[in-house]
Amino acid sequence: MSALHVQEGIQQPKQLSPYLKLKRKKNLSVDEFFSGILSGDRVILSQAITLVESAASKDIENSNLLINKCLPYSGNSIRIGITGVPGVGKSTFIETFGKYLTSIGKKLCVLAVDPSSERSKGSILGDKTRMEELSVDPNAFIRPSPSGLTLGGVARKTRETIVLCEAAGFDTIIIETVGVGQSETVVKSMVDFFLLLMLAGAGDELQGIKRGIMEMADALFITKADGDNIAKVATAKALYQSALQLFPKNENGWVPPVGTCSVFLNDTIANVWSLIIDYVKVTQENGFFEKQRAEQSVKTFFDWVNEQLKTSFYSNPKIENKISNLIPEIRNGKISPYQAGTELVKG
Amino acid sequence: MSALHVQEGIQQPKQLSPYLKLKRKKNLSVDEFFSGILSGDRVILSQAITLVESAASKDIENSNLLINKCLPYSGNSIRIGITGVPGVGKSTFIETFGKYLTSIGKKLCVLAVDPSSERSKGSILGDKTRMEELSVDPNAFIRPSPSGLTLGGVARKTRETIVLCEAAGFDTIIIETVGVGQSETVVKSMVDFFLLLMLAGAGDELQGIKRGIMEMADALFITKADGDNIAKVATAKALYQSALQLFPKNENGWVPPVGTCSVFLNDTIANVWSLIIDYVKVTQENGFFEKQRAEQSVKTFFDWVNEQLKTSFYSNPKIENKISNLIPEIRNGKISPYQAGTELVKG
Repeated sequence: MSALHVQEGIQQPKQLSPYLKLKRKKNLSVDEFFSGILSGDRVILSQAITLVESAASKDIENSNLLINKCLPYSGNSIRIGITGVPGVGKSTFIETFGKYLTSIGKKLCVLAVDPSSERSKGSILGDKTRMEELSVDPNAFIRPSPSGLTLGGVARKTRETIVLCEAAGFDTIIIETVGVGQSETVVKSMVDFFLLLMLAGAGDELQGIKRGIMEMADALFITKADGDNIAKVATAKALYQSALQLFPKNENGWVPPVGTCSVFLNDTIANVWSLIIDYVKVTQENGFFEKQRAEQSVKTFFDWVNEQLKTSFYSNPKIENKISNLIPEIRNGKISPYQAGTELVKG
Repeated sequence: MSALHVQEGIQQPKQLSPYLKLKRKKNLSVDEFFSGILSGDRVILSQAITLVESAASKDIENSNLLINKCLPYSGNSIRIGITGVPGVGKSTFIETFGKYLTSIGKKLCVLAVDPSSERSKGSILGDKTRMEELSVDPNAFIRPSPSGLTLGGVARKTRETIVLCEAAGFDTIIIETVGVGQSETVVKSMVDFFLLLMLAGAGDELQGIKRGIMEMADALFITKADGDNIAKVATAKALYQSALQLFPKNENGWVPPVGTCSVFLNDTIANVWSLIIDYVKVTQENGFFEKQRAEQSVKTFFDWVNEQLKTSFYSNPKIENKISNLIPEIRNGKISPYQAGTELVKG
């Protein structure tokens, strides 16, 4: 148990003290982070994620040490990716699904991968008014997407955040992402199960869901399956079922089902979870579950190496110096970016 | 060039010969590529783009030589990025806009950036039935997105393809991309003008267009502004105009206008072009045009260096050997991907 926790017991009412304490002591040691995480301290977990997201070189060093310490305590969760275009009701679904999970005793983490907005640095889950109930659930932990990073950067940070959350005792991890583009590929590479939410009636053309994303899904659920919408949902279900049959068979022996759900009908939400449990059972029995995680580790390895290559190259003072000489010449067109690149790399 | 053109050429021996020659002689030298491109030979241009897209190390070397030769002949086009969600009528717009451009004497290249589909390797512009008229226009050259590459890879190849197309005499380059996600940022980094196409009535939530993408746009045009749709379009126009006013002012002194267009109304298509001409004039006068290109060159430089770092690292036989020893250990969990990465990088 961390020094912080000991202090807590002595001085302050239990709820308030960690915040006050952190206000005073900003730089926890790696060991303090580690024991705080293992004890499930959410404030320390939050701060550790901030450390992992930091770009400062001292922080990167500490973050690597922390991740290595936490790794043996990680890996015991079910990791679920959820995607769908804006408008599909993703937040509402995750709120309801999340409340269901905590009600059956799960400890849930909701993370986001959304590297989109360059100028506004906007991110999903960033709006504090969203997931109001889940965000105050003591068995749920919600963290928005790190901002100001490239997709590769977000991917790395999210992978490391998963390690921290698992070490902190969370047994179910949801990674939310927006419904079109590269980020799905990234999320697919870090989850066990990938859920695609769809709308009835809009047609997948209009929803901007691409074949490639449908192919990645382990299940497709049509949302808002209630009231007047029921007939449209049934039509859409048949449509998606036949669409999925056209795809090449998955190597995991799992046929992605098309389901329907409504946040107003609790049993439809419970169905999503029992489907995921089925999937885990099937793929653990046929070995795909472990195989997929192993392949994901290999990908993590390459991504990590690639980032290290850049870090060590650019932190060399000779290189920094050369770059600062080359950039003005590139800007005024005296040298092409390709020639400048060759010069930098060769020398 | 399409097969259709070659067929046409059977009656015109002059058109046919380069194709036949290539059938016989598959490996052109860098000098042959270069002179073919400068003479505007579209078949050789096509083959040169294939060379640039190749991952074989011999091809990369030749491709770098070719790009360096072509660079002094590049840069003289107007580069236009066009985005919008599926369903907005992007292909139809580009077909009509492209036909207009060639009718006023422009030489047009249409390229695509679409790194989406991992399994199906699908790509926009890949469907041969699209842009039927433009694809047989002797003053237009259409090239689908390279497949099987990461977004970074597609970006690099597209930048180099622009260099080749400009050296071949194309004075207008359109880069098409799909409407949501990271690829917009990439396209923005290689064009002078970024056009966002929107639908009326769907609401930007449903269209999945994010604030970040709207902020990147130099103009927003609402498509299908004809017939019964006119009233909806007017409402949407007012909506988008007020939305754009909320954004921070652009550093280029250009206020992105909201326009409307229809492929059935030629003057609305001509308006898009005259708007682009205005933009080029304004930004050339205030220096932003050149400044943006200079910053894009700096970005190209860093992207190129980063790719070279990886290439030279992984092509080292000692590294290759170490990797093949580490991967089985990562797969069976004997070593964490982070520890394996540290071991590999440290040497």
